[in-house]
This record gives sequence, C-alpha cells and structure tokens, in this order.
Amino acid sequence: MDTYPVKISLEEAVELMLVHSKETDTKNIPLCEAWHRIAAENLLAAESIPPFDKSAYDGYAVQSADIKEASDENPVTLNIIEEIPAGKHPQFEIVPGSAAKILTGAPLPVGADVVIPYEKTVFDEKTVRITTPLNSGQNIVKKGEDISCGDISVSRGSLIEASDMAQLAGVGCTGVCVYEKLRAGIICTGSELAKAGEPLSPGKIRNSNSFMVSGYLYGIGAEPEDFGICPDDAAVIADRLKEAVSRCDCVITTGGASVGDYDVMKEAIVMAGGEILFWKIRMRPGMAVIGGRIGGKPVFALSGNPGTAAVTMQLLVLPVLRKMMGMENFYPKKIQVKMLGDYKKGSPYRRLLRGRMIIKNGEAYFLPSSKQKNSMTSASRDCLVLGEIPAGNEGVLEGTMIFAYDLEHF
Amino acid sequence: MDTYPVKISLEEAVELMLVHSKETDTKNIPLCEAWHRIAAENLLAAESIPPFDKSAYDGYAVQSADIKEASDENPVTLNIIEEIPAGKHPQFEIVPGSAAKILTGAPLPVGADVVIPYEKTVFDEKTVRITTPLNSGQNIVKKGEDISCGDISVSRGSLIEASDMAQLAGVGCTGVCVYEKLRAGIICTGSELAKAGEPLSPGKIRNSNSFMVSGYLYGIGAEPEDFGICPDDAAVIADRLKEAVSRCDCVITTGGASVGDYDVMKEAIVMAGGEILFWKIRMRPGMAVIGGRIGGKPVFALSGNPGTAAVTMQLLVLPVLRKMMGMENFYPKKIQVKMLGDYKKGSPYRRLLRGRMIIKNGEAYFLPSSKQKNSMTSASRDCLVLGEIPAGNEGVLEGTMIFAYDLEHF
Repeated sequence: MDTYPVKISLEEAVELMLVHSKETDTKNIPLCEAWHRIAAENLLAAESIPPFDKSAYDGYAVQSADIKEASDENPVTLNIIEEIPAGKHPQFEIVPGSAAKILTGAPLPVGADVVIPYEKTVFDEKTVRITTPLNSGQNIVKKGEDISCGDISVSRGSLIEASDMAQLAGVGCTGVCVYEKLRAGIICTGSELAKAGEPLSPGKIRNSNSFMVSGYLYGIGAEPEDFGICPDDAAVIADRLKEAVSRCDCVITTGGASVGDYDVMKEAIVMAGGEILFWKIRMRPGMAVIGGRIGGKPVFALSGNPGTAAVTMQLLVLPVLRKMMGMENFYPKKIQVKMLGDYKKGSPYRRLLRGRMIIKNGEAYFLPSSKQKNSMTSASRDCLVLGEIPAGNEGVLEGTMIFAYDLEHF
Repeated sequence: MDTYPVKISLEEAVELMLVHSKETDTKNIPLCEAWHRIAAENLLAAESIPPFDKSAYDGYAVQSADIKEASDENPVTLNIIEEIPAGKHPQFEIVPGSAAKILTGAPLPVGADVVIPYEKTVFDEKTVRITTPLNSGQNIVKKGEDISCGDISVSRGSLIEASDMAQLAGVGCTGVCVYEKLRAGIICTGSELAKAGEPLSPGKIRNSNSFMVSGYLYGIGAEPEDFGICPDDAAVIADRLKEAVSRCDCVITTGGASVGDYDVMKEAIVMAGGEILFWKIRMRPGMAVIGGRIGGKPVFALSGNPGTAAVTMQLLVLPVLRKMMGMENFYPKKIQVKMLGDYKKGSPYRRLLRGRMIIKNGEAYFLPSSKQKNSMTSASRDCLVLGEIPAGNEGVLEGTMIFAYDLEHF
C-alpha cells in the first residue's frame, strides 16, 4: 500500500521537500571572494559611508549665513583660508567672512554648512566672490547618508552582488560569513541512454539531462557531481544512489519516474534505504516526478523527458536548493503578463509554458517558445519565464492576462 | 591642444572604445565546462534529436488505417507482436491487424504511423482493443523535430546556457570552441583612499570601487586582477598602468577623471605611453570618464564616485568587454516602461536613474532607487534597470513613458 501522497500540487511538493531539507553549513571567507555567495548573517556597517560630512563638488566651503543676501548687485567676497583636497583633514574652522577651497570628497571644515561649486563663483588665489545664496546643507553629503554605522548593509539570506561588495568594503568589512556551496549529485537513468562520445546504436539516444541539470546547478552557485548513467535496473540505481548520497547534500535523478513497466525509481529509492515523500505533481509538464529522501538528504527523481525535467528543475528543485543554501527569497516571483498568441489546452491539468517576457510600450507580454513538447530541449532556450495556464479544460486567447513565474527574480 | 573629442554622447563613446578593442582568443573546451562561456563558432548538430521517430507515450504502435473506423460499437482488436522498451531497436514490421507494445521514447517500428496511449485501450498479453480512431502521426515525436542534423544548435557569439548544454549533448557534441575569458586590471586612484583592514585616519574613506568593479566583471565571466590603490600622482599611476596593461586585456581605473586640480588620469595615461580617445560623456551620472588606450589595449578611467563609476561600468565598460569576449548581443536592451514617482531634473544632461522594473497587472513600471547621489553605493543594490530621463531641463511626472536599459538582457 502506498503511504505517500500522489498527484499533489506543486506548492505542496515544494513544502514537503523543504520540510525534509536542511541548510548547508556556514563559513567565513574574505570579502573579495564573496561575489554571488549568500550571506549567513546580517552584515552590519561598522563604519558610516561617508565617514564624515563631505563635499559633493569641487568648490568653496562657506557659512550659508554669509551669503544669504548675495546677488549680482550685492556680491559677497570671502577670504580663502585653506585648500582641502580629498583625503586631507581640515586645519581651520570657517568663521564669518572666510571660505575654504574644497575638492569633491573632501571633509567639510568645522563652521561651514554649504559648498558653492567653482562654476558659480569668481575666484583668485586669496578670495572668492559669490553672487547667489544657497541653503544650508547644499552640495554636502552628510555623514552616514549612504549607510550609517550599525545599519544592516546586507541582510541574512541575500545574494551578495557587486554593489553589496562595494558597500561592505566601504564600511570597513574585510570578510563575511556565508553559506557553504551545496553539492548535488546527478544520476541519469534509462537503458536507452548513450554516453557522449559513444557511437549511437539503433534505438539509443544521447544523455542530455545531466548537462541540463548541471548547468542549472551552476546557475545557482551549487556544485554538481555527475554519477553517470544507469540502466532501468532498481538494484543498480539503488547502489548509485547510496554512493551519491554519501558524497552530496542532495541527489537529482532523471528517468524512471512515471507509471511504465520500466519506471523503477520509486523501487530504487526504497532499496537504497530511502523513503518516498510524494509521487506526481498535478501539472504538465512535470507530472512525472518523485520526491524522496535517503539518509535525511532530499532526492528529486525527475522525468527523463528533457522538457519535463527542465520545468520541474525550475519550479521544484532549484527553489528547494536555494533555500538549502540559505536564500531568504528562494521562489521565482509570480507576475501577471499578457498572453501573446492563443493556447489550446490538451489536458485538464495546470499547464506551464516555457517562454520569455517581452516589454513593449510599458506593457509586459508572455511569448511562449515554439517546440513545447515534453521531449524537447529547444523550448528551454532563453526560457526566462514560465507562463501558467490554469487547471481546467479551457485554453487562453491572445491578450488574456495570465500568471507567470519570473525564473530570474525571487 | 586637446586632439581628442570632449563631452561626446554615450553611443559615440561605446563606438570609439569598440573600434580600439579586439576580441579575445578562442579555444576548445569539453562540453561539461562550457556553462556561461561564449560560443566562438556556430555549433552545428551532428545528429538529430530525436535520432528516429519515437513514441511520446507508453502505448501501442499501430497503423492508423487499421483503426480509422474504430468505435465503441465497432472495436478493433489487433495482435501484439512485440514489446519495444526505450533503447531497443524494433524487430518486426507492423502490418495490418498487428500492433507493438511501445514505451515512451522507444523507436517507432516500421509500418506503424500512430501510437495509442495505454489508457485509451483495453489489452491483455496478446491483443489490444481500440475503440477510437487517431490520425496518422499522433503521439509520435518525429526524427529531428527538436533539432535536425546540420542545423545550428548554438550560434556564434551566444552565451552557452544550461539548455544549450543539454541540446549540444543531445546532438553528440563533446567539446566546443569558445572565447577565452577576458582579463581586466583594476587600479583605484585617490589620495583619500584607505585600504580594507587599515584604520581609517581623518579625511580618508575606504576604497570600495575595486570591489564593485570586480563584482561586475565576475558577472560577465571576466577575470579581474586588482592592482591596488594609487595616490593622485600621475607618475605613480602611469607605472601601475604599464604593469596592468602588460598582464591584462584591458584596464579599468577609478578616480581622477574629472576637472579638478587633482584629476591626473589623463596625464597618467599619456605618461604610460597611451592615448586619450575621449573625455567626458554627456550624461549624469557618468560625465567624468576618460576613454583611452595603451599599447593597443583599452583603458577606461571612471569617476571615483561609486554611483557614477557603477553607471559608467554598466553602460560603457561592460558592453565593450562583452563584445571583446565575443558576445554578439552585447548592449543592454532598451525597453519602454512607465515612471513610478515624479523626477525633477537638476541638470540639462541626459540623466540615468538606478532602479528596477516592477511588473504589475501586465504593465511594466520603473521604480527608481532611493539615494541616487553620485557618491552613493545604496542605489546600485538591486539596480537591474537604468531609467533614462532625456536631455533638457524638464523632469518627468509619474506615469510618463520613459526608455530604460535592461541590464540583464542584451
């Protein structure tokens, strides 16, 4: 008797796999190696940016009170008491009647509360003449205006991007605590599969799924390990599963996940000492999939059909793996877009269409790829968005608003 | 006398730098290492996917002529002459009155032209009974339907994605010719800059730009090499430039690119034996930038202001570098989106706003980041789109359609 749920929703499948997954370990690394790693703690600013009030332009630091009546008829002339290049600490206080020449990025001297850019002044070596008033605070970047000491620069569970690295460096950070990369084993099953480089004997096809799976894994910063091809033999697969589980944080297989006589993956997972968590998801493509675990590690048994495997990878496997690597926002964003072209529905199930978003005149459209068949790799090219046609027997017409998963944003 | 153009358009600046740049070398690598490399030639399919007509489902392969009158009242019973699992070459021809049990992915036997899925039949070991007609070709994936032998699988200048790796593996490819990774030297200039880990003495700020630049370089698959920090001293910078040029395909510097007394980058490039190609671009941020070349290699001298440097990096440097690495579509896609919030313009120049796109109810909006000042790193976080406010003195109101650069798509 089957004790696991069958034909569950995608959301239930994700939830079940998350319950049985755990986060990778964390470690400290130098900031210069942190690009696209995931922060394992809130990274706080130990210093402010900027660390002092600084000038936003090349010009003159003055007291705004000195120039509040300045005009062409009533020019104000101030004595230049100092030049402050960026990097120099000001030596003198600005008092009424005085000014300091100041360069972009240099600290504002005590007493000054505004900077007049060069081009709005007439100056010589000793004096500067000003003919327009400026309010207090203008052309100054206040201490901590970009980020203040103690603020969160990068929050736990975020991907560290180029701009984050810059800000972290700016607040004095030299190393960060990140999640370890996840190691994922890949096993492709199917007696019809020929290895790359082998001649293709009659009835055989090339194994392509291990390349697809490893490519997607690279895309999320995980480390794939290829455990090769297995025939449709539960005992052989079970041994390979045990090996992969012993070396990896999770295992992804393709093939043998459907209902046919040669679909041996459920048996193989159990033979390897594992447990089936669910079988089949109510969507197309993606119906043929098994969620399981062996020794506390998640096992995703995907369809051997490349299109089906790709969609299940994007909506089930990658989100769970992102969460295991500590990502706070791990699920593709759901957006509403307008359908380009009609879509006639062939089954009553929720249907995912591979495709991409087109932005035109401020409107967001979904353009399905051609060659959507489950067996086909072509539709996955440039597939950055999965359009969703709801369950039921009706298709949708051109222009219908549909939901879609934005596979690049979470 | 300046012999180089000053205050040119962004488009002119990109064009000038492209003229003086050359593509990296190419090399052959194994397919399993090809993720996110750029194809250096059209990669052709040496085999078809699928390599033969195959069954899309588990079912029975028959002649459509045999079942064209089939109905509940007039069931057609056929003799099962063979079972064809995936990977097996069929032994027998299907003749009128016969059928072969066939599994998903198995080759269609000669004589058969349609597959009836199991669930639409009643069967025992020896016979199958069919009560509905199906047209010739149904439930069959034709040889080459995904891609045909001789077709282009991945075209020259494309980024090789997960789905491309899968298709290439599927057509028997084991290695690909790709462009070499580009090596980019980074020099940050400014006497005000303190190194990571050093105490921050008065007037100094942390160097953050080298981290920003290297992060963006990682994002395009280039290899950054950090040549450290230089004071505002043309001779020191010139020596460092020569060292970087001798080891890298291009050099990116920050600081010293504006009009101030300490802006020595133009002098440094010339002292290093180089040539200035242009100075200043008519946009904000991004006005302060120098394009040059030393020993035939492009030098990009960006502003020291982190916001300015980031925008110039995205709209000038990265596109040129992508083209040097062989990418055919190297420039951020221009899209039209609706402005969220008003924007008041402070200068007559073309203005770029850092921000992101929001898709809501089928409409595409541009949401500017807060903290847009040139000096600030914050606005670059999650900056995936640069909104463009045209030149002139007028700002734009909420809801105005503006152009924007989609920094993720080319």
